[in-house]
Amino acid sequence: MPELRKDPLSETWVVISPERKRRPQFFKSAGEDVLSTEDCPFCPGNEDMTPPEIYSLRDGGSPANKPGWKLRVIPNKYPAFRVEGQLDRFAEGFYDKMNGIGAHEVVIETHSHSKGIDELSVEAAADIFITIKRRILDLKQDMRLQYIQVFKNHGSMAGATISHPHSQIIALPLVPQRIKERLSHAENHFKVKNRCLFCDIIHHEREFRKRIVMENNDFIVLSPFAPRFPFELAVYPVHHKSSFHEMDDNAFYSMALIFKDMMARLNKVLEKPAYNLALFNTPFGVDCRDYFHWHFEFIPVISGTGGFELSTQSYINPIPPEEVIEIFSRS
Amino acid sequence: MPELRKDPLSETWVVISPERKRRPQFFKSAGEDVLSTEDCPFCPGNEDMTPPEIYSLRDGGSPANKPGWKLRVIPNKYPAFRVEGQLDRFAEGFYDKMNGIGAHEVVIETHSHSKGIDELSVEAAADIFITIKRRILDLKQDMRLQYIQVFKNHGSMAGATISHPHSQIIALPLVPQRIKERLSHAENHFKVKNRCLFCDIIHHEREFRKRIVMENNDFIVLSPFAPRFPFELAVYPVHHKSSFHEMDDNAFYSMALIFKDMMARLNKVLEKPAYNLALFNTPFGVDCRDYFHWHFEFIPVISGTGGFELSTQSYINPIPPEEVIEIFSRS
Repeated sequence: MPELRKDPLSETWVVISPERKRRPQFFKSAGEDVLSTEDCPFCPGNEDMTPPEIYSLRDGGSPANKPGWKLRVIPNKYPAFRVEGQLDRFAEGFYDKMNGIGAHEVVIETHSHSKGIDELSVEAAADIFITIKRRILDLKQDMRLQYIQVFKNHGSMAGATISHPHSQIIALPLVPQRIKERLSHAENHFKVKNRCLFCDIIHHEREFRKRIVMENNDFIVLSPFAPRFPFELAVYPVHHKSSFHEMDDNAFYSMALIFKDMMARLNKVLEKPAYNLALFNTPFGVDCRDYFHWHFEFIPVISGTGGFELSTQSYINPIPPEEVIEIFSRS
Repeated sequence: MPELRKDPLSETWVVISPERKRRPQFFKSAGEDVLSTEDCPFCPGNEDMTPPEIYSLRDGGSPANKPGWKLRVIPNKYPAFRVEGQLDRFAEGFYDKMNGIGAHEVVIETHSHSKGIDELSVEAAADIFITIKRRILDLKQDMRLQYIQVFKNHGSMAGATISHPHSQIIALPLVPQRIKERLSHAENHFKVKNRCLFCDIIHHEREFRKRIVMENNDFIVLSPFAPRFPFELAVYPVHHKSSFHEMDDNAFYSMALIFKDMMARLNKVLEKPAYNLALFNTPFGVDCRDYFHWHFEFIPVISGTGGFELSTQSYINPIPPEEVIEIFSRS
């Protein structure tokens, strides 16, 4: 059973998950995992290599766990969290623990082994986001869960162990420290200004016009003022909306368009980089509709981090965000 | 000129340092940098490949910036911070900036291109720590500086771009958020308990006896209760001491012994891993002598981090710390 342990120095929770050790890739050093479509557990025809599906989009009523799907959601075979059991909290000496209740799902984004979002149709791309919304709404019904982290690791340098395009959903029995901090900074800003911090950022960037990568009527992609990493990007809905899972399905078509465009340009400028993508959404049971504004953070893996970043969680970034815009505009 | 920018979402400072882009390794993907001793800027005979030395330990009075040294401290050729200039703080719209005043030094730990601390004599190993203490005491005189981060990246997977053994010293005009948080948690603990949090941890671990890697009269190496990474270790002085730079030189011989032992065993168990080592020390101008207790954090690079860790700063660790002790005891 996975276990959550609170580090008394940082007051953050760490997941101790021995099950993750059983992954075939564990202890191997990073190196592109080029499984052929025959060996790939996420390819059509290999449905029996994964746990039974939770959800799928299928043409013409093909049966579950058989080919014929366009998109599939499955439980992670090596989950960091388990749905079964009761959420128990206990102490060891003066330390704090709880058992690792939660969910860990994988969204297999397309039947194609190698097509990125930029190569999918707008409809197929929008279906990924709509599916994630459906999964959040479903998991939200479990009262033990407080936060859902949606993220994507693409490429072995970004932590992916399977190259077939997929996203991951981790549902947690607590709100991670970094999300709590972001909420609290946004709440403080709202208390002082009576305005959403994220709306203020979008407004400033639209006036300043030096850090906008692209925008349409509904979404804006920014090269943020203080990025931790070179070519880090942020994707915001232009109009204030606190929760991703409260978006209208139609909005995701507009978002699919901007994501496809963003990925096509990134693949050109950075030559198909490994990357991490993460959704920042509202926790459950906290009313932050006035001051939180959901968004995505996109981080390509270009330069590594070292001891300075690990210890201080301050980051040294050699590329000013304004230069990122110049590089994009030249491409 | 490097620039510090405050991210309004996390309220942490990011260093935007275009000078770091000039490093020959920038934009190359990770891969062991095996420079021959002829090409290595840190090897004896190549002193003119580095900026002039700040400090050195030499036998028999050989001249500065010539061979004959045992240990050398130089400014980083591609510094993330600059000593020259005034510390200016300014605004851009509603964002906050300051210029990147600080220092960035490199401690070339030995003239040998490849000897790790476990292969050095106790005296040579202690000299590294004594030198770092001297550099901290010297930099402390600059009133613009608030915190000094000492760290070591070993191996390209840990962010090292030169394989010759070296540590780095970055002096900052601010206290990084993660250090502030650690201080504040320790201060809160002291307020409630009237005891040092770190002394409490050491005391508990000595009673519990399941997470001690090794100890001597002066130092203890722990596999911490809630480690972020597999085989993460922490090194504490057993007796309460807030600042590394207030240690008696003699103590560093005892520390050298335990570090040599720790590295020899890690090299055996993990087959010479890449690793990061970081010192957690007191900031300048904060009186935390009662509640802070300096220490080292040691993190071998085994499994990568991905989008979950990047976004939440929560970590999933597949190896329980108690199992680390078993693995060490079998080796």
